[in-house]
Amino acid sequence: MFKKIAIIGVGLIGGSIGLAVKEKKLAKEVIGIGRRRSSIRNALKKGAVDRATLDLREGVKEADLIIVATSVDKVMTKIKEAAPCAKAKAIIIDVNGTKKNVVEYADKIMPKRICFVGTHPLAGLDQSGVLFADSRLFDNTVCIITPTRHTNKTALRKIIRFWERLSARVKILSPQAHDIVVARVSHLPHILSYNLCSIISSKDIKMAGSGFKDTTRIAKSNPDMWADIFLQNRSNLLRSIDDFERSLKVLKSYIIRNKKEQLLKRLAIAKGKRESIG
Amino acid sequence: MFKKIAIIGVGLIGGSIGLAVKEKKLAKEVIGIGRRRSSIRNALKKGAVDRATLDLREGVKEADLIIVATSVDKVMTKIKEAAPCAKAKAIIIDVNGTKKNVVEYADKIMPKRICFVGTHPLAGLDQSGVLFADSRLFDNTVCIITPTRHTNKTALRKIIRFWERLSARVKILSPQAHDIVVARVSHLPHILSYNLCSIISSKDIKMAGSGFKDTTRIAKSNPDMWADIFLQNRSNLLRSIDDFERSLKVLKSYIIRNKKEQLLKRLAIAKGKRESIG
Repeated sequence: MFKKIAIIGVGLIGGSIGLAVKEKKLAKEVIGIGRRRSSIRNALKKGAVDRATLDLREGVKEADLIIVATSVDKVMTKIKEAAPCAKAKAIIIDVNGTKKNVVEYADKIMPKRICFVGTHPLAGLDQSGVLFADSRLFDNTVCIITPTRHTNKTALRKIIRFWERLSARVKILSPQAHDIVVARVSHLPHILSYNLCSIISSKDIKMAGSGFKDTTRIAKSNPDMWADIFLQNRSNLLRSIDDFERSLKVLKSYIIRNKKEQLLKRLAIAKGKRESIG
Repeated sequence: MFKKIAIIGVGLIGGSIGLAVKEKKLAKEVIGIGRRRSSIRNALKKGAVDRATLDLREGVKEADLIIVATSVDKVMTKIKEAAPCAKAKAIIIDVNGTKKNVVEYADKIMPKRICFVGTHPLAGLDQSGVLFADSRLFDNTVCIITPTRHTNKTALRKIIRFWERLSARVKILSPQAHDIVVARVSHLPHILSYNLCSIISSKDIKMAGSGFKDTTRIAKSNPDMWADIFLQNRSNLLRSIDDFERSLKVLKSYIIRNKKEQLLKRLAIAKGKRESIG
């Protein structure tokens, strides 16, 4: 599918893409680009890349696909660094969890000879780092691709096929629509999980059963990454929190006024929605 | 440990107790008491009980341990029905998710010749019914036992041993302290999960990844049971929701004012607490 794929940032997501590309033979060579010797050594040891370098320019120059998979706060910098070093007609994609900011920036700075496509695989673990990378990480997960009027159609089709080959279910949304929906299905659950752990005392938490544990599993995620995501998608996240608070007030009012039937009805509808996704 | 154990209500919890008692040979005979023919038939088919009956009086009369494991709204009625039919020195326990209401009621109506002990195994599934019963359901889970000044010490010791034999970690709390802690570690997560599903549209929920799914798994639980629990433990639950709302407001203020360091610190503390329970 590609001759050379360069992956900038070989952590959990970058490493899992590398493993899947190699397993499915989607490229002749996968080049990993890291910031620290230890991280590229781990990427090589894990078998996530064929070759690794600390030199971004050297790493991307022959690649026909460049994947920017760094932490949230470095995505735009790395796109900017990679673009002038990439060869003509190379495709650059990112995998960042917010899209409007990244895609607008990339569209603005991208040289004409390079095609940029914003993508976001909704996959992850509460662990990070290439040592947890898994070629099956994207199996049957959703990958949202966010084209704009600047997006090259051929490159877009190729990137849709690429994610489908990694076994993801591709959905196309505008960057704005993406940010709204992930605020609700991903960023909001994360902030609620963190908040639930916040208010439980270290003594009480010892009584927790499987319900509490599942509800708060994602509070084990990397706080640095999530603080950045919350701030990057601030306005959509705040709107989701407002919706959550408003709805919680309704539930509270049913409890205060002992309205079993209304409470029951609301819980049953919620259960039905949850069951629709298995 | 016991000659005959009678289980009133052979659903998920009652059935799992029956299976575990039989596997660990804690009684010579387990008698299941149900309200519907189909449920006692399933309990027998599952092997959760040795014998089953629809007749409560007949089922409990020779038992030296009577376990009331019916749905929340019937616990007190069944304790009241069982007590006069039980033989002298029989022990009655319940497994209800709220304790102050049940234990106060039981202490009040219990004949002197019968010992009552309130217990609450913090175990469960989002499925209900005896067909999902599992002899390992209580392995390494917490079981809270809630004695009062009326509780017979010998019976209490026996019931502590009983739950320990079912592989639960027993904690002793007053009924009031129990209701406060479960409001926080169990009832609050449930209402938050239901509420999160409430505000997501049927279209958006299709984008959900593993984070959303874990956070809302318990919204698949039985709404009837949970509406009753929420109402029974109303004041403690409302206080927990207030704490949650107050803490969420702080997180929101950090996001609004772009306070990365403060946000990060709060998320990191939450993560640390969550990791303390695995």
